[in-house]
Amino acid sequence: MTTLEIHNRHHGQDLPAHSDRPTGLEGVRVLTGDRPTGALHLGHYFGTLANRVRLQREGADLLVVVADFQVITDRDLPGDLHELTTGLVLDYLSCGLDPDSTTIFAHSSVPALNQLVLPFLSLVSTSELDRNPTVKEEIRLAGRSSVNGLMLAYPVHQAADILFCKAELVPVGKDQLPHLELTRAIARRFNERYGPVFGLPDALLGEAPVLAGLDGRKMSKSLGNAIALTDDPDVVAAKVRGARTDSDRRITFDPAGRPEIATLLTLAGLCRGQDPAAIAAEVGDGGAAQLKRVVTAAVNDFLAPIRERRSELSRVDARDILARGSERADAIAATTLAEVTEAMGMNYGGSHRP
Amino acid sequence: MTTLEIHNRHHGQDLPAHSDRPTGLEGVRVLTGDRPTGALHLGHYFGTLANRVRLQREGADLLVVVADFQVITDRDLPGDLHELTTGLVLDYLSCGLDPDSTTIFAHSSVPALNQLVLPFLSLVSTSELDRNPTVKEEIRLAGRSSVNGLMLAYPVHQAADILFCKAELVPVGKDQLPHLELTRAIARRFNERYGPVFGLPDALLGEAPVLAGLDGRKMSKSLGNAIALTDDPDVVAAKVRGARTDSDRRITFDPAGRPEIATLLTLAGLCRGQDPAAIAAEVGDGGAAQLKRVVTAAVNDFLAPIRERRSELSRVDARDILARGSERADAIAATTLAEVTEAMGMNYGGSHRP
Repeated sequence: MTTLEIHNRHHGQDLPAHSDRPTGLEGVRVLTGDRPTGALHLGHYFGTLANRVRLQREGADLLVVVADFQVITDRDLPGDLHELTTGLVLDYLSCGLDPDSTTIFAHSSVPALNQLVLPFLSLVSTSELDRNPTVKEEIRLAGRSSVNGLMLAYPVHQAADILFCKAELVPVGKDQLPHLELTRAIARRFNERYGPVFGLPDALLGEAPVLAGLDGRKMSKSLGNAIALTDDPDVVAAKVRGARTDSDRRITFDPAGRPEIATLLTLAGLCRGQDPAAIAAEVGDGGAAQLKRVVTAAVNDFLAPIRERRSELSRVDARDILARGSERADAIAATTLAEVTEAMGMNYGGSHRP
Repeated sequence: MTTLEIHNRHHGQDLPAHSDRPTGLEGVRVLTGDRPTGALHLGHYFGTLANRVRLQREGADLLVVVADFQVITDRDLPGDLHELTTGLVLDYLSCGLDPDSTTIFAHSSVPALNQLVLPFLSLVSTSELDRNPTVKEEIRLAGRSSVNGLMLAYPVHQAADILFCKAELVPVGKDQLPHLELTRAIARRFNERYGPVFGLPDALLGEAPVLAGLDGRKMSKSLGNAIALTDDPDVVAAKVRGARTDSDRRITFDPAGRPEIATLLTLAGLCRGQDPAAIAAEVGDGGAAQLKRVVTAAVNDFLAPIRERRSELSRVDARDILARGSERADAIAATTLAEVTEAMGMNYGGSHRP
């Protein structure tokens, strides 16, 4: 079974969805986000969304950036960004993110955040950018012959995301630690050169629950093995029906020996909040057909409230929420930018001066 | 005699100061600018400022960007940016730039301009950035062991300068043509991918008048051979007195054979708007001492009205002008940014949407 794919390239949040509650998160500012590249699926849910909802419930001041400019780091055209971005926001809301306590905004709507990329670029060498392992991996994954400048600058843009709002915690996967380290380096160097403006954000590092796609490979929309949050019950049934199994009628949870079966059990277990082995025991000698019925029901039961919330929402709601989120992000960015320009001695005329 | 140093790394403007008037400039938008790295000197005046004043007089819609973020491309600390930027504005005004017809603004005050760097970065490959000859030369001149990310991104930031205001003409020196070519490529690629938003700016390429420093090398503040626009008459006299000459009492204009003498004659000629040979004939057998008296008088006569205008201005005026300029630049940038985000499909919620 491969590890969970974390699509949200920005800040994969990977605390276990059902771990003990963290304490002391009241008012703590947390930054996370996604690129709007397609419908979210169950891999995203258990990998990141569930934990965002948990952080929100624990009182964290959560900011979620829709990294729309970042879509064009590894492709020429972004696709229908209006559709993709409003769809992403609807995915968030249907999973339980509450715009009254969580700030959801798009990069493109907050120029003052993006402007921070300029001074921050001056604080990193091109060799630091060239050797960033996450960027190298992204480049490999994208399979592109040449890399565009935005891809190279992407860790610096991410530093701007984290520092514009002075996030204290950033949920990351282990593979993203070099990015956060660069952000901390940028904050430190800025403070050394211009005076104390930024705190150093900490990683909120957890263990990702393992959820593979229906073919045992990592769950990914592009591999066609993912269950989207927006799939209707028949689509879910058809996808589960198409999953590979084996001919042993006795269902057991044996990830090493029977990976396809284990994948389905894990999926049902996550959806029900149960141990996969307990699901196996429940199916017993029912064979693959009975297992698939159980998995389909578990997924559809799990998705039912998500579908219901989504049915009450429209694209107009998503736009309204983005507008509200951008307004708050803009205000935060303006405050930080004023501190930055003051520290740098740029306190002369201009519309962004007091 | 070396060629004129063009300090304004952005868009060295090098039409001959005393050439025939260009025609058809009424309302044509022209973008130019400087990095605020120190007091402007006569090399800047005859190399770029005189032509800006001429473009303004011809009715061009001139925008002058003070590239304050660009100061930290080749040094760690920008110096006192408030002092440097307001000083640069006062240099502009004392030379005849009129804030009622020319827009003077600082990069740091126009986030919507700077945000364009992000989509534009996606339109260039890192190898295009790496091989930009002007950047290579800047890196060589800066003599730095490592290059920071802002230096690498600088041609893209310049493209944002030119395209945010849809400049039709950009005064450039020959060495800066590769930059303008990159800007044109970015405009072309953007239009191809997202639809027609940008026109292609043209170069306003002219022949730079030759003005060396007092030691015959290129005029440069850092070489200590420059006459600043703010030098008072005694300082000018002392600097000219210290210039190297020769012992031949008969003064002739012979750039190849007598470069030091030719440098002084050229300086006086430019200040008086006369041919250097005519100045030589006027001094005749007066020798170096008489030549230096003539040069000192020519420079001080030339600088007198500039000093007088400057004495009527204060730092507060400079700040006011920057605030007014930034307001106009901000409005222009907001319009262009709205077109860009609309073309890219980012027409969802946010404070910068209609």
